[in-house]
Amino acid sequence: MMISKVKNAMSNLVGGMMPHGHHHHNHHSGGQTCGTDSLPPRFPYGRPDFLDLTPELLQYSTEHASRPVLTLKRGSRLPWQTGYAEVINAGKSMLNEDQASCEKVFVKKPSGKHRNSTLLDQNGSYSHCLSLGLTTPDGTGIPLHFWGIFDGHAGSGAAIMASKLLHHLIRDRLGEICHLLENPSSAPPICLAKNGSPYQAEAKKGGAQEPEDPDAVSDASVRFYMEKVVSLESLVMGVIETAFKQMDDLIEKEKSSYAISGGCCALAAIHLMGKLYVANAGDSRAIIIRNNEVIPMTNEFTPESERQRLQYLGFLRPELLGNEFTHIEFPRRIQHSELGKKMLYRDHSMTGWAYKTIVEDDLKFPLIYGEGKKARVMATIGVTRGLGDHDLKVYNSNIYIKPFLSCVPEVKVYNLDEHKHGPDDVLVMGTDGLWDVTTDKEVADAITAYLSCCDPSDPMRYTLAAQDLLMRSRGVLKERGWRLPNDRLGSGDDITVFVIPLAGHESET
Amino acid sequence: MMISKVKNAMSNLVGGMMPHGHHHHNHHSGGQTCGTDSLPPRFPYGRPDFLDLTPELLQYSTEHASRPVLTLKRGSRLPWQTGYAEVINAGKSMLNEDQASCEKVFVKKPSGKHRNSTLLDQNGSYSHCLSLGLTTPDGTGIPLHFWGIFDGHAGSGAAIMASKLLHHLIRDRLGEICHLLENPSSAPPICLAKNGSPYQAEAKKGGAQEPEDPDAVSDASVRFYMEKVVSLESLVMGVIETAFKQMDDLIEKEKSSYAISGGCCALAAIHLMGKLYVANAGDSRAIIIRNNEVIPMTNEFTPESERQRLQYLGFLRPELLGNEFTHIEFPRRIQHSELGKKMLYRDHSMTGWAYKTIVEDDLKFPLIYGEGKKARVMATIGVTRGLGDHDLKVYNSNIYIKPFLSCVPEVKVYNLDEHKHGPDDVLVMGTDGLWDVTTDKEVADAITAYLSCCDPSDPMRYTLAAQDLLMRSRGVLKERGWRLPNDRLGSGDDITVFVIPLAGHESET
Repeated sequence: MMISKVKNAMSNLVGGMMPHGHHHHNHHSGGQTCGTDSLPPRFPYGRPDFLDLTPELLQYSTEHASRPVLTLKRGSRLPWQTGYAEVINAGKSMLNEDQASCEKVFVKKPSGKHRNSTLLDQNGSYSHCLSLGLTTPDGTGIPLHFWGIFDGHAGSGAAIMASKLLHHLIRDRLGEICHLLENPSSAPPICLAKNGSPYQAEAKKGGAQEPEDPDAVSDASVRFYMEKVVSLESLVMGVIETAFKQMDDLIEKEKSSYAISGGCCALAAIHLMGKLYVANAGDSRAIIIRNNEVIPMTNEFTPESERQRLQYLGFLRPELLGNEFTHIEFPRRIQHSELGKKMLYRDHSMTGWAYKTIVEDDLKFPLIYGEGKKARVMATIGVTRGLGDHDLKVYNSNIYIKPFLSCVPEVKVYNLDEHKHGPDDVLVMGTDGLWDVTTDKEVADAITAYLSCCDPSDPMRYTLAAQDLLMRSRGVLKERGWRLPNDRLGSGDDITVFVIPLAGHESET
Repeated sequence: MMISKVKNAMSNLVGGMMPHGHHHHNHHSGGQTCGTDSLPPRFPYGRPDFLDLTPELLQYSTEHASRPVLTLKRGSRLPWQTGYAEVINAGKSMLNEDQASCEKVFVKKPSGKHRNSTLLDQNGSYSHCLSLGLTTPDGTGIPLHFWGIFDGHAGSGAAIMASKLLHHLIRDRLGEICHLLENPSSAPPICLAKNGSPYQAEAKKGGAQEPEDPDAVSDASVRFYMEKVVSLESLVMGVIETAFKQMDDLIEKEKSSYAISGGCCALAAIHLMGKLYVANAGDSRAIIIRNNEVIPMTNEFTPESERQRLQYLGFLRPELLGNEFTHIEFPRRIQHSELGKKMLYRDHSMTGWAYKTIVEDDLKFPLIYGEGKKARVMATIGVTRGLGDHDLKVYNSNIYIKPFLSCVPEVKVYNLDEHKHGPDDVLVMGTDGLWDVTTDKEVADAITAYLSCCDPSDPMRYTLAAQDLLMRSRGVLKERGWRLPNDRLGSGDDITVFVIPLAGHESET
């Protein structure tokens, strides 16, 4: 039954079209409004281009029974000899909803015809002429390396679209401040004139509107003109944050013309001018392994880690809870017979727990409910940041989840040039399928052990290490499901891993 | 001029009455509505009881010109041989707006007549019969040690009231769960019947209201009945959090009957059953020094550290900004002539900076403005958590600041019993006057150096160490103000310091 469904899906898929509606099968994870059945997909389903799969291999990749591990082919190189491996889930969705991208692009000033191509205009809409054709290097511009993994849910549409476009948005926004990046020694000007050149505000006093003699500047006006110095690094962080927002807006906008299903967590690593920016919106994770020490580069955003932000929103905007949910957290559901008794609770301002007398309103379903991997926002979704999900509603209701989700990543910066890196020092990026069953320390030990046994000159070593990580997390199929060597359950989720050597940029320009 | 004012204030003060209105002198720090001139103070101004000051010493303590350091008298003991020292500011307010308390109390079941004495009733109002007379130990109950420092602003009223009452509120709330504290080995029950005994919810399915056969419990109902296990420790944390909230509510309520001026930061350390709970709401700081290593026990809550929370509130509730402020942050004020140009900004969701085109709305004053110690919320207040401030408004406007302030502390727990402590291992609690000029490391080095030269059996050694810290931060008066030995400026603020030996509890029961 499952297999025939897959076969059917694949025959459509290989022809470049998704079977409309079929990917909306996961009713338990919240209803996705499907008024879009007649719309074409924004991008056809597929695996990352760099895998260069034949139709046969693409079909082979979807076998839930065998869960083949896909890796880079020998001979196909990603920048920095990046290693990559992926595996499909054990049956929870027909297709692999993870996506990935790895690109080297060049940041340059917007040329006349592409100028403003991806800029948000005054009405908040985007031009359609995304400068997709500009990725061919012509030797000019500032090189930027991009790695992204996108863990989709309730469909593949958002993940695929983000994997195709997010790095372009980041590149184009950086292009707008290209002239600032080219002068890294001077801090970015606070104000820019319309032609992009720095605008120097004239000093003046109090509330006066007219420019005055600059020699007359008093202490008071100096204080009035407190100026924060903003670093170029925090400007790049801001560009990445706003590019995620722009990506999310673009998905929303294009849903009127295309079928773009579901949502996705997004984890991106960007190398620019000697620094590595790691931006995370969701529950994927990145760690740096240096000298077999773990340096965490992300925090996960889940109903538990973002509980207080979500409760605060529910508290301030109760109408978003649709009269069905309460923003107060309880350790379990309350029964009607418990009215008037006292129960442990915590609200948006609390970390500890206290007792409160149960009132009628407390019988509503809690906004945040469940523990660990089973924690959900409004009984629907287990991650609280990401892209897409604009149509996601609570099952059988008209309550939208999106206001509680954030598309803004947390960005951490690692200064590559400040450290000396050996060939076994890497950045590992993985979707939650990896980290659910393998700890940071286990990943570090496995990577270090594997790489130390590899020929240091083998360009495949990082892909082989990624494959090894994947096998450790997927396990092998036994009578009682996918099992790890220690007989614990392996991950039944889609898993995607990048292993990126930190000394990699030294071998390239 | 300043001195005659002080003399005048003191003559009233020594008589037990504050000169109404005189303590509202700090117009630049935001207007405090004074419709309360005819009301008596809730508690008269004074220094902490344990200093046992004569009227002459009390007056002496207010000399801004000499800034005498007050310490515990030899022979007057605080629990654990706690050390204490304080000094008044260099003139920024007439009186020392810092307050402190140090108490040993006993947690016990509420007795019949005091039952519910400080409980929030259904209407949110409190009974007046705060059980102040109950602090005399009668040998029963669970001992609780309390240290609090309260850094007042725009008046002393809130700080004095909190120093008199906060520990009672914490003690009384703990009393309500006394029967749970007495059984530390079992986790607190999720639900309590009205008589306080654990209430066991009957298992049932789905949405059914009637109790069913417990043997019929299915897997589904087990999942429905997910129960979080809440630790006793997080219950104590919740008690402390809610007691701070109750303290804040009490200040608001009693303002209708008493003059209670200003607001205060509150930092409290509570020792209960082998654990030290450090609760901080404001910009005071506590560190543990163990083996001359610093363990930070607090984070400061300031316009900069809480920028995103405040901006988020301004974004969701723009009416709180009174059409005069914008929740968007800019690196400096914008001039009208800059409309249409691009300026660096960040909103509630951003950590980095980006450029935006300036529109009319951006000309409003920023909700968060200024850097470091000069950062302010709505140009008025430099701390974002604390007690009181209910009437605080933006100068010359009707915009209240209070909605942006939080009275909930962050609570950190340190398990005293898990570590072996020597006589030089201490908890240092200090108001910002201390930490503005002395780093954690400098405090640790000074404490360690000082204590190692002290007779370990001298009960005054922690007070002498506190005095030493104070002198290092106040400095000495030279022609160009209060100066540290390295000629940097000393702190002109009120300074209050507790030095609490962590081995102290071993010598007492």
